[in-house]
Amino acid sequence: MQQRICEIVRHGEAGTQVTVKGWIRTKRELKECTFVNVNDGSLLAGLQVVIPHTLEGYADLIKHLTTGAAAEFSGELVPSPGKNQRIELHASHIHVWGTADPDTYPLQKKRHSFEFLRTISHLRPRTNTIGAVMRIRNACATAIHQFFQERGFLWVHTPIITASDCEGAGELFTVTSLNLAAPPRTPTGAVDFSQDFFGRHAYLTVSGQLEAEIMATAFSQVYTFGPTFRAENSNTSRHLAEFWMVEPEMAFCDLQGDMDLAEAFLQYVFRYVLEHCPEDLVFFQERVDNTVMATAQQMASQAFARLSYTEAIHLLESSGRPFEFPVAWGLDLQSEHERYLAEEYCRRPVIVYDYPANIKAFYMRLNDDGKTVAAMDVLAPKIGEIIGGSQREERYDVLHSRITEQGLDPAPYWWYLDLRRFGSVPHAGFGLGFERLVQFMTGMDNIRDVIPFPRTPGNAEF
Amino acid sequence: MQQRICEIVRHGEAGTQVTVKGWIRTKRELKECTFVNVNDGSLLAGLQVVIPHTLEGYADLIKHLTTGAAAEFSGELVPSPGKNQRIELHASHIHVWGTADPDTYPLQKKRHSFEFLRTISHLRPRTNTIGAVMRIRNACATAIHQFFQERGFLWVHTPIITASDCEGAGELFTVTSLNLAAPPRTPTGAVDFSQDFFGRHAYLTVSGQLEAEIMATAFSQVYTFGPTFRAENSNTSRHLAEFWMVEPEMAFCDLQGDMDLAEAFLQYVFRYVLEHCPEDLVFFQERVDNTVMATAQQMASQAFARLSYTEAIHLLESSGRPFEFPVAWGLDLQSEHERYLAEEYCRRPVIVYDYPANIKAFYMRLNDDGKTVAAMDVLAPKIGEIIGGSQREERYDVLHSRITEQGLDPAPYWWYLDLRRFGSVPHAGFGLGFERLVQFMTGMDNIRDVIPFPRTPGNAEF
Repeated sequence: MQQRICEIVRHGEAGTQVTVKGWIRTKRELKECTFVNVNDGSLLAGLQVVIPHTLEGYADLIKHLTTGAAAEFSGELVPSPGKNQRIELHASHIHVWGTADPDTYPLQKKRHSFEFLRTISHLRPRTNTIGAVMRIRNACATAIHQFFQERGFLWVHTPIITASDCEGAGELFTVTSLNLAAPPRTPTGAVDFSQDFFGRHAYLTVSGQLEAEIMATAFSQVYTFGPTFRAENSNTSRHLAEFWMVEPEMAFCDLQGDMDLAEAFLQYVFRYVLEHCPEDLVFFQERVDNTVMATAQQMASQAFARLSYTEAIHLLESSGRPFEFPVAWGLDLQSEHERYLAEEYCRRPVIVYDYPANIKAFYMRLNDDGKTVAAMDVLAPKIGEIIGGSQREERYDVLHSRITEQGLDPAPYWWYLDLRRFGSVPHAGFGLGFERLVQFMTGMDNIRDVIPFPRTPGNAEF
Repeated sequence: MQQRICEIVRHGEAGTQVTVKGWIRTKRELKECTFVNVNDGSLLAGLQVVIPHTLEGYADLIKHLTTGAAAEFSGELVPSPGKNQRIELHASHIHVWGTADPDTYPLQKKRHSFEFLRTISHLRPRTNTIGAVMRIRNACATAIHQFFQERGFLWVHTPIITASDCEGAGELFTVTSLNLAAPPRTPTGAVDFSQDFFGRHAYLTVSGQLEAEIMATAFSQVYTFGPTFRAENSNTSRHLAEFWMVEPEMAFCDLQGDMDLAEAFLQYVFRYVLEHCPEDLVFFQERVDNTVMATAQQMASQAFARLSYTEAIHLLESSGRPFEFPVAWGLDLQSEHERYLAEEYCRRPVIVYDYPANIKAFYMRLNDDGKTVAAMDVLAPKIGEIIGGSQREERYDVLHSRITEQGLDPAPYWWYLDLRRFGSVPHAGFGLGFERLVQFMTGMDNIRDVIPFPRTPGNAEF
């Protein structure tokens, strides 16, 4: 019976016979035996296997036991005399499944740049760093589902292909099955999308929020967790053309409840990862960013600060700081302002709420003051905005006015407006960029290194 | 404190004070009191609320308490004298959040066709049938994650936008940010995709399998669960242009292990739904398809039959049945053949394996007989193929030949071939069409009614 290396390393008892299968990371030949480190992806450290040179067929075998080779090792677990591991495997039978020629296998022991590793995205999951990222990514995703399912939220699959543009903003990818070399044309020469697959111009979604609102007005509490897209030509370390987003939406919920949920949600996810991936977090702490553990512990346990936008502007104005961007009521907060609030003033995550209406989207609920909306952003130290949410405008007339005020055509929003005609309720939700969360948790510099196959301008390989 | 109706109906104790929030499904006015059924989406049945006509403001209130209205009810739980419920709520305070004009609200008590309901996909989740579908859908999805996470599989996010076409088959949607009215052209007049967002012609994925194989050769056991796409102009009750797929992939696994996993997987999901959504399954049993419960119980508990393709052909040939399509070794099984095997011969789910190489994809492992591949399909009574899987070809030379034999260019598969150069291992996996599973479980006729917002030729509304 094959056993996962994480289980053997954590719980394996000396004296038992086991078989492990994995890939060789390192090899060290001594006089009487050879040590190989075998990794099956279940644990950062892998398992130390000791191969006595008296093993039958050793001379042939050892040539193939190189970095990257896939092999199977059977033998007895023995307490390890080394200080780096509790237990090791003394091999009595070895089978090499697949070799890896040392002259051509790109992942030799030396350190590689993340830029280079992106060019071999089919092999980079076998490195320590990307391996640890992907285990933490999986733990975050699992924690997210568990958090919502425990609270009775339904996971809803909102459409990827859509004819509507959630915020009237953001550049969209077109989805088409037309022959682009010679598309059908209307009499005026425009592309005739009525002849396209969906009978209209279709796009990749930028958010599932509007459809999640539909589901929330039937099931009370729902969340999306799926891919979303931006066709922005942003070659930065924080932008992807394809990324995953989590968007809970709750009926009978106001901004206060929304903030409470966002805080409980982030705390839960950090607590889960601290519990399930301690080795991986320590790795990032030691190799990538020495604030990772402190941040995780703070996020997991400490209540977030809360400031209204108006208070935040006062604080920034009276901070005496020479900010690069202007600070004034009505202007959006810039990254430097967000970081001052979270890192210096509050020294912990802070939720800023009640933003000016004119800098926020049409669907956010207008407050009684007539000039702010019930929006909130969770700002985290170092990373800035990690969650953005709002109470949604549930009043038909106010929503209709906000749509037209922002220069949008209300017609395509007929169904979104209908939700305000039939059984309308106060409701609220937020969005979390999943890769931003993983980046925040691991301290990884570039968002392209926290998703298996990044999609950015010029890059769709693999 | 707001409470979910499913918890009150199942566990609420008489004598306690509760507040519920939801949407009114039905209203029945008697002489001294009015009964309303309130549903918050957490449970098919909803909660019966009794409103005494002596309640302050009753005369005004009752006008607004119509089907579809959103309201909040506080009061005491009382044992119900009615035979349809254990407990009911005697309201002492009511607040109407949002009305629903009976003259215009489309979901009145009468039955609506599923075709009509699709035209109001923003409201249909509030119906009994679509509500029950979505709760079962969520339970299936949760069971899937739980099954794999318990076994140490990582959930991996394979790319949605891709430059490769997994099987060299299936029609693809193009993803582009070019101006389609006047795209850049090469000197020969073709569309110049090198100037498109990704610097090449990009598509929506038809499968995450090839990328999942990358991840399996690093983490041993992984699964995808995400959207996939087909640009086929199929207007049938079994096809969607956008659907969700689950694709586990396991290193150090052969076809036998793949079949074992598929069986354990389906059993687990059916067991989970039987346990978590009993009311919804009974609803489908009584209203939609009276074989739903028997099927679920069989899938949850009975071992699947297994037949090689060659045995299956012999059985079909000797069945004496006048099949419409020919039966002969080398031809693919048609739906009528699959149904005979599962429904009549085996009378339970059956896994058919070792198919002729020439009717299967290039990546399936060639068996030693040189003419079959290690492929398998799980065939379920009534529905036919529900899972398709295979052991993958792990031998570089054989894979390369199979690619060229099928008329494909090996160049774009450089990274897929690389997996066979460096630490190659026997590995296997399968694909499950998520909506087919939900359709199978609920007995729903049309696949468009088991996904919140179906995408089909001509339809991308909502």
